[in-house]
Amino acid sequence: MTVNFRSDNETPVAPAIMEALIEANHGTAFAYANDDWTNQLNEAFSDLFRSQVTVLSVSTGTVANAIALATITPPWGIVFCHSNAHILRDESGAPEFFGNGLRLVPVGGKNGKIDITLLEAAIKDSEGHGIHSYVPSALSLTQSTETGTTYSIDEITALCEFAHGLGMKVHMDGARFANSVASLGCHPAEISVEAGVDLLSFGASKNGCMSAEALVIFDPSVNTETTQRLRKRSGHLLSKMRYVSAQLLAYIENNLWLHMADHANRQAAKFAACVDAHPQARLEFPVQANKVLLNWSEEGFKQLEDGNVQFLPWPGRDDLARLVFGYSTTDQDTLTLIRVFNGINV
Amino acid sequence: MTVNFRSDNETPVAPAIMEALIEANHGTAFAYANDDWTNQLNEAFSDLFRSQVTVLSVSTGTVANAIALATITPPWGIVFCHSNAHILRDESGAPEFFGNGLRLVPVGGKNGKIDITLLEAAIKDSEGHGIHSYVPSALSLTQSTETGTTYSIDEITALCEFAHGLGMKVHMDGARFANSVASLGCHPAEISVEAGVDLLSFGASKNGCMSAEALVIFDPSVNTETTQRLRKRSGHLLSKMRYVSAQLLAYIENNLWLHMADHANRQAAKFAACVDAHPQARLEFPVQANKVLLNWSEEGFKQLEDGNVQFLPWPGRDDLARLVFGYSTTDQDTLTLIRVFNGINV
Amino acid sequence: MTVNFRSDNETPVAPAIMEALIEANHGTAFAYANDDWTNQLNEAFSDLFRSQVTVLSVSTGTVANAIALATITPPWGIVFCHSNAHILRDESGAPEFFGNGLRLVPVGGKNGKIDITLLEAAIKDSEGHGIHSYVPSALSLTQSTETGTTYSIDEITALCEFAHGLGMKVHMDGARFANSVASLGCHPAEISVEAGVDLLSFGASKNGCMSAEALVIFDPSVNTETTQRLRKRSGHLLSKMRYVSAQLLAYIENNLWLHMADHANRQAAKFAACVDAHPQARLEFPVQANKVLLNWSEEGFKQLEDGNVQFLPWPGRDDLARLVFGYSTTDQDTLTLIRVFNGINV
Amino acid sequence: MTVNFRSDNETPVAPAIMEALIEANHGTAFAYANDDWTNQLNEAFSDLFRSQVTVLSVSTGTVANAIALATITPPWGIVFCHSNAHILRDESGAPEFFGNGLRLVPVGGKNGKIDITLLEAAIKDSEGHGIHSYVPSALSLTQSTETGTTYSIDEITALCEFAHGLGMKVHMDGARFANSVASLGCHPAEISVEAGVDLLSFGASKNGCMSAEALVIFDPSVNTETTQRLRKRSGHLLSKMRYVSAQLLAYIENNLWLHMADHANRQAAKFAACVDAHPQARLEFPVQANKVLLNWSEEGFKQLEDGNVQFLPWPGRDDLARLVFGYSTTDQDTLTLIRVFNGINV
Repeated sequence: MTVNFRSDNETPVAPAIMEALIEANHGTAFAYANDDWTNQLNEAFSDLFRSQVTVLSVSTGTVANAIALATITPPWGIVFCHSNAHILRDESGAPEFFGNGLRLVPVGGKNGKIDITLLEAAIKDSEGHGIHSYVPSALSLTQSTETGTTYSIDEITALCEFAHGLGMKVHMDGARFANSVASLGCHPAEISVEAGVDLLSFGASKNGCMSAEALVIFDPSVNTETTQRLRKRSGHLLSKMRYVSAQLLAYIENNLWLHMADHANRQAAKFAACVDAHPQARLEFPVQANKVLLNWSEEGFKQLEDGNVQFLPWPGRDDLARLVFGYSTTDQDTLTLIRVFNGINV
Repeated sequence: MTVNFRSDNETPVAPAIMEALIEANHGTAFAYANDDWTNQLNEAFSDLFRSQVTVLSVSTGTVANAIALATITPPWGIVFCHSNAHILRDESGAPEFFGNGLRLVPVGGKNGKIDITLLEAAIKDSEGHGIHSYVPSALSLTQSTETGTTYSIDEITALCEFAHGLGMKVHMDGARFANSVASLGCHPAEISVEAGVDLLSFGASKNGCMSAEALVIFDPSVNTETTQRLRKRSGHLLSKMRYVSAQLLAYIENNLWLHMADHANRQAAKFAACVDAHPQARLEFPVQANKVLLNWSEEGFKQLEDGNVQFLPWPGRDDLARLVFGYSTTDQDTLTLIRVFNGINV
Repeated sequence: MTVNFRSDNETPVAPAIMEALIEANHGTAFAYANDDWTNQLNEAFSDLFRSQVTVLSVSTGTVANAIALATITPPWGIVFCHSNAHILRDESGAPEFFGNGLRLVPVGGKNGKIDITLLEAAIKDSEGHGIHSYVPSALSLTQSTETGTTYSIDEITALCEFAHGLGMKVHMDGARFANSVASLGCHPAEISVEAGVDLLSFGASKNGCMSAEALVIFDPSVNTETTQRLRKRSGHLLSKMRYVSAQLLAYIENNLWLHMADHANRQAAKFAACVDAHPQARLEFPVQANKVLLNWSEEGFKQLEDGNVQFLPWPGRDDLARLVFGYSTTDQDTLTLIRVFNGINV
Repeated sequence: MTVNFRSDNETPVAPAIMEALIEANHGTAFAYANDDWTNQLNEAFSDLFRSQVTVLSVSTGTVANAIALATITPPWGIVFCHSNAHILRDESGAPEFFGNGLRLVPVGGKNGKIDITLLEAAIKDSEGHGIHSYVPSALSLTQSTETGTTYSIDEITALCEFAHGLGMKVHMDGARFANSVASLGCHPAEISVEAGVDLLSFGASKNGCMSAEALVIFDPSVNTETTQRLRKRSGHLLSKMRYVSAQLLAYIENNLWLHMADHANRQAAKFAACVDAHPQARLEFPVQANKVLLNWSEEGFKQLEDGNVQFLPWPGRDDLARLVFGYSTTDQDTLTLIRVFNGINV
């Protein structure tokens, strides 16, 4: 039997979310985000983040990111992000499209996290002469990172302070925000609004929803007219928005989102422990969320494939593969993976 | 009890569609439109239109329209559309945004349909001097129209021939395409590919789906790389596309889509007959789909409101209201409406 | 001998302007609009308009218009303009390009001037439902008009009051502003800042300059950072801007601009008087600047051509031609025209 | 007396060019690039490059670059350029604006030249997964480089072969192309069309013209409709284009452009020799054109300033300054510089 560790994007919808969709499916509801479910979002997320927030419900993380960045960055502004960031590598230029030619500048840093010294150097390097040069405008952090690590509260706070000190806004791509909160065991506000984050792409699709993400705006100076116009002009103002918003409400109710993320993290941790103990394989990065970046040999990867374990190679690297654990990964799935990994006949 | 004739956008998801979502919700599936459901779309829609087509699954009609128009029209090209068209009046500039400043030029015509003589005049009026002027590039037809009428096969054929003769492509905004097919009792190909339409925004959300539309490309010369890039760059390449595609497959299976549209049309027809018979009220347009444009007095509209009938006023007109009938409109709903309309105590 | 009444765009550079270029051509000068000539523009134009203004020097009227409109109109905003306006018909979408998909809506009106009642109707017709619809944002007036007429002070004042009352800004395309000032015999401020105009594309190229236009910003709330960025990003921040600014300074010095415009107007008036007296030909519009729109027969136009008079047909009209008189049109040129027009052997 | 080595952008217009402007200034001429001067450009430049070319006359190097790149690169395409490139650092995003969100990716390399190994690595690093990732589309070379060096014929040939092998087009930013041709003593075709360059921004403004650049298109597959539309939509189709084209014709006549560039290069070489001989100062890069990047101490730079030598600091570096020599730099200017540099009382 095949076990799939390719991506949490490939998981089905969680039963509780499907239940919420079914429950929302009675009678008529006002169209275009004027329904009762959507109307609850601001309050529900304000409670969740113990802070007054404005929420924009959308279908994908890409559009949440693109709207956020285009709203806080002029066409002649720079968004600094990690060189592995999804906005840079996997969105085919959505931020540039929404932002009318804004620029992304990659910054390095160990463990998939932006190094503040390298950020400072990148900003200095971008310095120009007034009207001729792009303006540093925003910092985008990915939490958890593309490589499965998690910024600490202090790291985020320091980066936000640094960015704000230069007049830049801070966006967080939280496609896997839940996994970081679960990993740190902190309050969600502690690694977002209270650490200085201005806008958060709050992911849900990878962690049990169908197609639902929330752009959570913490900073009251952000132009929400612009965010709404960009959502509409990009074709993302769903007529039947109730079905997105119902997912989001169910997702955050009773900490469902954290229970699902915690489950995924634990499965990842179990496998990570086995990698640590393996004589040849090793973890490329600390495992602090639901991804394992496995450094191994060609033969090793073949062993996984032969054992019907599905995973993705890391672009440009022969010795690296990515295994992602989801809310729906079962103990049995992980056990199968571990057995195949350890060469135990399954 | 309130009865809602505001918009088919406010209807819930049809049971068969919800069932399809539940059925699709097993196990993992390849992400980003590489799943088994999406892979069936080209064949299923080629069968439906008895012609080889390419399908792009998306969440909204707005994005289907915007991708279609931006693909067939250069930034310096004109799209001609009816002065009531959704792309002109209700999409906040999505076509202009995707099309990098393309231009929409409104054309009049009775019954919400483009008049070929007025179209010819509009084209002539747009004539300029080479590089200084916009180029007529596309014609966009809405089927059924915003005012509830339906182009005949001959009308579409004539408009397509005219447009093609000038080197223009033809797009059809088929947000309510189903209602026209049901109304005409024709084959869907007869009012699209066989009449000369090059691309069709095939609507489903208004007629029982959750958030699902298909951009159906008939013309093999259309650049599908561009359509795919625009879908991705606009944040519309859902990771879990299977749930859109599963809806679309269920929607067209066994003519479900036509049964639902036919039901809506019949409800509209029943009410239209009563309007026709009414001494003061009258139909603003022939009722050839699921919309009734009701011309009545202020008192008349108040009578509807007092009877808990919900509907929308027509922008800029005091004497006009819009009632839309959906797949989920019950006989009882329509009966209630008719009674209130006729002043029968309910 | 041929006489050319095709366009004032075809005239050479006036001697005084060429002299100014030669005078400016000594030694080095700071690049990119930091030179001594450019630094004088704000003060010189503030004197000219007896009001504090900010000036952006550019090379073409198209870019002046596009920067102005893109600065005061969001991508989801409408600019209302006359159906004959250059921004609509002759700029290949520059406003839409700079404005990221803003929309131009044509408004009719006699004599090439916007009719306030039709403007009101156009605004009402554009009314929509919030986020779904474009927002009326700007009114663009052309002074003198494309058809050779001139708005009066009162007409401009009334249009500005009306636009401002609806929260719209007013732009004036003054490609032939000089001709209107000369025609009215008024102070330039009276038909611009004092009448309520917020930004003026102050033309100079058609009236004796080489390639020089000034975007004059009257309204201090206009974002001049945006205007400067758009000039730079569109490649219009010339390294050797001194040569544009030197033209502009010479152009407005000692009323040179008005003397040249007055000369052109007088030549047009002489011919207009002959048209008025002609038994078959007639003036399509009152001649209030330097253009004559001549309504005549095919034979009549052939008579002009045979007499080596150059002019342009009016697009889409067989019975209409345009003759434009420039600062460099000589008495002899006009005399030749009049003789040919009157069938006198030349 | 002050001597200015800040930038060749600050030089005046060469006498022969001004003479050409005066000569062109007789009578009327067809507007919008239909004049007799512009009509000669294709043939004149085809002769110059001993190859059939299409020329687009424009006013600035920025717009020449932006049109070129936007024409050969889709919005989801990457342009690779040196990390010092003007298109990256000094154009405020003109390529991104014209290219609707295309992306520039910087590549390092010694002496301001792109290193083919680093280019290969950058391309490999940009590799992604189909529709999610940008596509390598173009390579932009700067000749001479921002740091005053010149690519050899072999270097350009190798880079073009490499780029073409991957399906990329090659653009050359030749703002100081003349200086490289003069420096190499080669035929202009040898470092452009014959080496594989597809489009050249042929600079003239820095080397004696007022505001004149030529986009020279070598590759017949380049869409010249697009280049013309972009010129028009960006407001760069001057009505009086004859004055740009007359400059360009005079500039290339009788090798004037090369004589002027050679003169500038020789002045730079004289100073470079002195730097070489200086005990503390040194050349940061080989001097192969008209720029000297001077590595010196704070005291050294102060000595220059005190001696009334004007130059520009290098952004982000305290120990580096830029001195640019122009066609109009006199022997006396250079002598003064050398004396001040050597601490000789002047």
